[in-house]
Amino acid sequence: MILRLGYDIQFELPAPVAIVALLSVHPSRVADLRAPDELRLDPAVPAETYVDTFGNRCTRFLAERGLIRLSESTLIYDSGLPDPIRLDAREVPVQDLPHDTLRYLLSSRYCEVDRFSTIALELFGGVAPGWSRVQAVCDWIHSRVSFGYQYARPTKSALDVFTERFGVCRDFQHLAVTMCRALNIPARYATGYLGDIGIPASPDPMDFSAWFEAYLEDRWWTFDARHNRPRIGRVLMATGRDASDVAMTTSFGMANLKHFVVVSEEVQPA
Amino acid sequence: MILRLGYDIQFELPAPVAIVALLSVHPSRVADLRAPDELRLDPAVPAETYVDTFGNRCTRFLAERGLIRLSESTLIYDSGLPDPIRLDAREVPVQDLPHDTLRYLLSSRYCEVDRFSTIALELFGGVAPGWSRVQAVCDWIHSRVSFGYQYARPTKSALDVFTERFGVCRDFQHLAVTMCRALNIPARYATGYLGDIGIPASPDPMDFSAWFEAYLEDRWWTFDARHNRPRIGRVLMATGRDASDVAMTTSFGMANLKHFVVVSEEVQPA
Amino acid sequence: MILRLGYDIQFELPAPVAIVALLSVHPSRVADLRAPDELRLDPAVPAETYVDTFGNRCTRFLAERGLIRLSESTLIYDSGLPDPIRLDAREVPVQDLPHDTLRYLLSSRYCEVDRFSTIALELFGGVAPGWSRVQAVCDWIHSRVSFGYQYARPTKSALDVFTERFGVCRDFQHLAVTMCRALNIPARYATGYLGDIGIPASPDPMDFSAWFEAYLEDRWWTFDARHNRPRIGRVLMATGRDASDVAMTTSFGMANLKHFVVVSEEVQPA
Amino acid sequence: MILRLGYDIQFELPAPVAIVALLSVHPSRVADLRAPDELRLDPAVPAETYVDTFGNRCTRFLAERGLIRLSESTLIYDSGLPDPIRLDAREVPVQDLPHDTLRYLLSSRYCEVDRFSTIALELFGGVAPGWSRVQAVCDWIHSRVSFGYQYARPTKSALDVFTERFGVCRDFQHLAVTMCRALNIPARYATGYLGDIGIPASPDPMDFSAWFEAYLEDRWWTFDARHNRPRIGRVLMATGRDASDVAMTTSFGMANLKHFVVVSEEVQPA
Repeated sequence: MILRLGYDIQFELPAPVAIVALLSVHPSRVADLRAPDELRLDPAVPAETYVDTFGNRCTRFLAERGLIRLSESTLIYDSGLPDPIRLDAREVPVQDLPHDTLRYLLSSRYCEVDRFSTIALELFGGVAPGWSRVQAVCDWIHSRVSFGYQYARPTKSALDVFTERFGVCRDFQHLAVTMCRALNIPARYATGYLGDIGIPASPDPMDFSAWFEAYLEDRWWTFDARHNRPRIGRVLMATGRDASDVAMTTSFGMANLKHFVVVSEEVQPA
Repeated sequence: MILRLGYDIQFELPAPVAIVALLSVHPSRVADLRAPDELRLDPAVPAETYVDTFGNRCTRFLAERGLIRLSESTLIYDSGLPDPIRLDAREVPVQDLPHDTLRYLLSSRYCEVDRFSTIALELFGGVAPGWSRVQAVCDWIHSRVSFGYQYARPTKSALDVFTERFGVCRDFQHLAVTMCRALNIPARYATGYLGDIGIPASPDPMDFSAWFEAYLEDRWWTFDARHNRPRIGRVLMATGRDASDVAMTTSFGMANLKHFVVVSEEVQPA
Repeated sequence: MILRLGYDIQFELPAPVAIVALLSVHPSRVADLRAPDELRLDPAVPAETYVDTFGNRCTRFLAERGLIRLSESTLIYDSGLPDPIRLDAREVPVQDLPHDTLRYLLSSRYCEVDRFSTIALELFGGVAPGWSRVQAVCDWIHSRVSFGYQYARPTKSALDVFTERFGVCRDFQHLAVTMCRALNIPARYATGYLGDIGIPASPDPMDFSAWFEAYLEDRWWTFDARHNRPRIGRVLMATGRDASDVAMTTSFGMANLKHFVVVSEEVQPA
Repeated sequence: MILRLGYDIQFELPAPVAIVALLSVHPSRVADLRAPDELRLDPAVPAETYVDTFGNRCTRFLAERGLIRLSESTLIYDSGLPDPIRLDAREVPVQDLPHDTLRYLLSSRYCEVDRFSTIALELFGGVAPGWSRVQAVCDWIHSRVSFGYQYARPTKSALDVFTERFGVCRDFQHLAVTMCRALNIPARYATGYLGDIGIPASPDPMDFSAWFEAYLEDRWWTFDARHNRPRIGRVLMATGRDASDVAMTTSFGMANLKHFVVVSEEVQPA
């Protein structure tokens, strides 16, 4: 299956501002690309790319005053298979976890693990460890948090989601990530493309999506507390501790979003 | 000048628990060591060391049920010079910052940069950029926050410090780090030894200390919003986004602190 | 000047629910009424009225499952004069305040006075006490907080407004009330009708409005940190510590708002 | 049974400060007094008493700069009976509650009912309504929150207690009050004397105590989520929405506590 991916994002800038964009396909998917993956800037300004400590490809540039457009359109091969499931994947005792997974057990801006240690145990301490426990976290959140764009706000943390029970996809995942960490299961926040491949059309406009990954057995597995079912066509862009690490764009100064379109769709065979 | 460094920390564990310790001297100071820097565990259990993504040397082990003692005593050479000052060190525009400093501009668990962007500008937007601005942040915090061990709590964030105006050294630095980041100055949290070298004896028992580093001109500089004056004899152990990244010990299970002694003193020449 | 006041509010109730409505004109304005002030319930259910400890007229009833409509239309005389100003109104030392104003110095749900005592002094401690100080609070908030319906949320407190700098009228007033109390000036939250009498038409649909009252000299005075200028045609409905005390409707169970229209306009003379 | 009650509280004041004290026995217990209930001020300053809107007897005065001592010693008759229990006391549907209990269903500074509506239902929605539900709230809190003076802080709210699981008596009651209100059971915070009558001596120094009252059937009943068993010798001083309303002393300016002794003990018959 070939997917067309792309976006058209425009900001109005009252003054020049440095921007870091995490809009590239994740290095783990680069081999699947069928067309160049290249952020176009209009007006063109010099840009640098680098890989951050989480392994994400970042692009940074100084945007000039006025309107700036970030856009691209590329093609990627996808297996067309839904997210893998392995029901017998075990939790790894902390002492046996790989070194580089340990940081995904700690608190971060939107994931106050230190405030959930007892709550998580009360809710999920009795569930069989391993895949079923992460799934129980997802089920709990999916059934008790309601989705709505009007509930989004940049400072919303897992604790806010836990008390308000409303949010957007980022909020569902923050709460799930926090619960997993509080149970000593490494969990990280993930962003990327997620089209409506194989499911009835959704009324919402296409957007980037957030999901999360939990470390079980010997690898990271995809979970999604918002949709809470295996999906086809996820294309990972970035992983990090939480949304603070992997914002699509981080502007170090004022930037007013004027236009935002994301595309992720199957290319019909000729 | 030769300093004797050491600690004796004891936990009572109701069950086996995985522990990560950041109790080693920082790699940047290893060349100064005059004796082995080795964490002793009693009872002895197998331990592994590794370097985390922040560049800190970490030790991890599975502690058995019962009492566990972490201790060491080592020697290190120190220049005996106070923290360097460079009044004309400039702020680096975000677009010119090294890639690896950018993560120290973002929000983290105890540093809610996203909630301080306007406050920081209101307080320090009018101060001349560069060294003087970071110093102004330190002066402000030093004169408006009161120190007291009774005000410590593990979940206290920069916003809590800003409203409560009480805290321990970690709290002073969290607020300073947050203000700097909100001003687009990379800032990171630092922990280590800080004895009373060259100053009148303090009534407080010796403890590890926290300070912070700000990136100006072309390097990281030591600042300390609690003491707010150049000190002699800091020995860096770890840097990270905030206290969550660089806790002396992180226990993934219950661990009751029973004993805690830290030593950092000049060894008198014979 | 005669104003026509009214509303049409409809809820869909999945189950019967007790509701308390503060939709009557405040007792202090009853003498100005030129038509009955009567909440109509459709379907009709028995309702009781009472006066709460803040002096507001409340109506309570048990609404049945299904759609319930709360509506009324009445007429009231208004002087047509703008909010009174008395620039030389003095702050009253706490020891001389009337007993019943003291509760308006304390913390309440959305007004965390205990977290603002230092901040308020830093910002307004140097301003001349009295009317000018309350006005300085309003000026500060009016110029630094941006209005937008998308920033409303039920749990938003003064501290949230202080850090986010976005909100609806209730948020502006909560921050102002909190600042005043932290300065030892009694302040209470007020709700009522506020039409666009005497000002160019606003693009926003008519809504109830919130403002606040501060106690100076020998009485309560109207201030409004959102509009921040004297207005014509305010009709007070209720005062309390904050929005929690004087919600237009408090539903003790699920109630989905389906329709909401408020009218407040000058009746043209024949 | 005759109890001797008293206190000796001393503040150091850097400047004159207005103080409101809620240190009188509650009007509902005045008939039991066997000696005058009179706050002594040393140095003597004029004081006024009044009853606040919650029905508490308050004393207010302007304390001079320097040391001020508030003290008294009185005698009161007590039945010697433990807190009454009525297991079949029913919850009153909101529509049938007396008007003046409704305010004890709303959010207040330390009781964020709006953030607990779902949590309370999840935890206690399945428990039989009435006395048993309030008792279930107390049992849950009593068994899951740990007591410790080191965990006290003035800004701690019910949500903080729920996540931290540590606190002093006020914190236990704030969480219980919040849970009850979220279940539509009126609940109010209570303060008073509570000696160790009839129980083995406690190692803690005597202090004032906090408990709470829930409205069931046709009256307010005493509950205590900290001790969680019927006690002998409670002497009520004040009730209110939460600790903000009924602080023993509220100082409108700086006041440093220098001495604090409370007495509540049975007077041995001759």
